[in-house]
Amino acid sequence: MAVGVFDSGIGGMTVVREIRKRFPGEKIIYFGDTKRVPYGNKSKEELIRLSEQIVAFLIAQGAKVIIDACNTTSALALPHLREKFTTPIIGVLEPGAEHAVHESTGKIGVIATKATIDSHCYTSKIMEKDKDTDVTAVACPKLVGFIEDGDLDSDYLKRILKSYLNEIFLNNCDTLIMGCTHYPFLADTINQLVGEEIKLIDPAIPTVDILEGYLEESQSEEICYVSGDLHEFNNTLMKVFPNHGFEKIVEFDPIVDGE
Amino acid sequence: MAVGVFDSGIGGMTVVREIRKRFPGEKIIYFGDTKRVPYGNKSKEELIRLSEQIVAFLIAQGAKVIIDACNTTSALALPHLREKFTTPIIGVLEPGAEHAVHESTGKIGVIATKATIDSHCYTSKIMEKDKDTDVTAVACPKLVGFIEDGDLDSDYLKRILKSYLNEIFLNNCDTLIMGCTHYPFLADTINQLVGEEIKLIDPAIPTVDILEGYLEESQSEEICYVSGDLHEFNNTLMKVFPNHGFEKIVEFDPIVDGE
Repeated sequence: MAVGVFDSGIGGMTVVREIRKRFPGEKIIYFGDTKRVPYGNKSKEELIRLSEQIVAFLIAQGAKVIIDACNTTSALALPHLREKFTTPIIGVLEPGAEHAVHESTGKIGVIATKATIDSHCYTSKIMEKDKDTDVTAVACPKLVGFIEDGDLDSDYLKRILKSYLNEIFLNNCDTLIMGCTHYPFLADTINQLVGEEIKLIDPAIPTVDILEGYLEESQSEEICYVSGDLHEFNNTLMKVFPNHGFEKIVEFDPIVDGE
Repeated sequence: MAVGVFDSGIGGMTVVREIRKRFPGEKIIYFGDTKRVPYGNKSKEELIRLSEQIVAFLIAQGAKVIIDACNTTSALALPHLREKFTTPIIGVLEPGAEHAVHESTGKIGVIATKATIDSHCYTSKIMEKDKDTDVTAVACPKLVGFIEDGDLDSDYLKRILKSYLNEIFLNNCDTLIMGCTHYPFLADTINQLVGEEIKLIDPAIPTVDILEGYLEESQSEEICYVSGDLHEFNNTLMKVFPNHGFEKIVEFDPIVDGE
C-alpha cells in the first residue's frame, strides 16, 4: 500500500526517514511544494486550496493513506481535508503535541518557524490535551536555512541554536518538541546541546505510530478464499504448508454461474 | 501491490510459497475453487466462464497482477482472460515449458494429472519452443490425493511415485516438469527418487520470475515530486538525507491555482 507524504519543501523527508526505518518495504510517494515554500505566510484559504490539490494528486498516484508532514497545513487545513477526502490523512501536529504531553511532567518547550509559533497551534493543541501545561514556544527563524544549506553541525549553527534554546533552559522545560519537520535533521546536534535532562520530541515518530495502524489494517486484508469446505481445506493446508502466512482463510464463492 | 493467485484448489499454494520466499513483504490474495475442483473434466467454455469471474473478483479485492496457478486454465482460458482484462495475468504453463526447454538437452519428462496430460498442453508448448524435443508425458492420477491427505513422503507414496517415474527413467529424460501445482509439495521426495541426473522443474519458480518484472515496474513508481527547482532540492536532499530511497525525483506541479 502506497503512503503519500507532502510538505512545503524538504522537511517532510524526516517523516519519510522514519517510515523507511520502521517499514522498509513500504512504498512512498512524496510531494514537496518547493515552488511555494514557505507556507507560513499564506492564508488559511490559500493553504486549503493548495493542500486539496496536493492530496487529490497523491491519491491519483495511488496513495492509500496520506501524511500531511507540514505543521502549518496540519494546523490550518487538515480538518477541511478530512471532510473532503475519504482517504485517511494523518497530520504531524496532533501526534507531536500528544506525545509531548505524555512524556512531560508539565513544562514543554516548542521550537518552530516564526509562522508556526505565531499561529500558537502547538500551544493550543498542548493545552487541549492538558490545560495546566506550561508551554515555552520559541521561534527559530534561521534554522531552516542552515538545513537547506546542508549545515547540520557547524560551530556557527551551534551558537545560533544555543541562543534559541536559552529560553527553553531558563523555563526548565523537560520536553522539547521539534515543531518543524526540518528540525529532526538537527536532532543529534540539539541533543548534544540540551543533554539528557530534556527529552527531544520528533513528531514524525508518533505520526508514524498512527500510520502503523493503517498499514496493519491493510495487511489484515491478506485473505485466502475457498469456494468449498473450509475445514477440509484448512486441514490439508496445515499439513502441506503450515507457514502459508494468510491472516484469514474464509469460505466464499464469488462465482454465480458456470457450475 | 497485491498479487492475486488462483487455482482449482490448494495446489496454487506452491506458487504462494515461492512468492513468500522471494518477496516476503508482498501482499497476496488467494482464491482456491475447492467447490469445483478438479477442473480437468470441465469444458473450455465452462473454464473461461469460471476463471473470468475469479479474475474479476481478485481485481475487485485489489489485485494488481494475477497468477493463474492452474495448469488447466493456463492452457485453455488464459488467452481469453488476457483479452478481457487489462490487469496482467501470468500463467504457469508457458514459464514452466520455457524453463524446461532451456534446461534440457532435448529429453523432457512431464508428470501431471490425467486431464493435463490428455490435453497435451505441455507437449505442445514445449514443441512450440523447440520442435525437436522428445517429450515423455506421464499421467499420475493418484498423486493429488496423497498431497490432499498430507502424505508427502510415506513408503507407499514412494512406491506409487516410482512406478509413475519408470517411463521417465526409461526414456532417459534429463529434465522433469512437475506439471501440476500440487506436485512441488512432493519435490523433496521426487528429488530423492530421480537423483541428480534429472533436473526437476517447478513452474512456480519461472512464473514468479515473471512476477518480479511486474513488481519492479510498480516499485519504480516510487517517486518524489517537487514543484520548484529540482537541482536545488536534490542538492539539499543529498546533504541531509542521502539514503532517501526514491528511485526518481521529478519536477512537477500538480497545483493549478492558489498561488
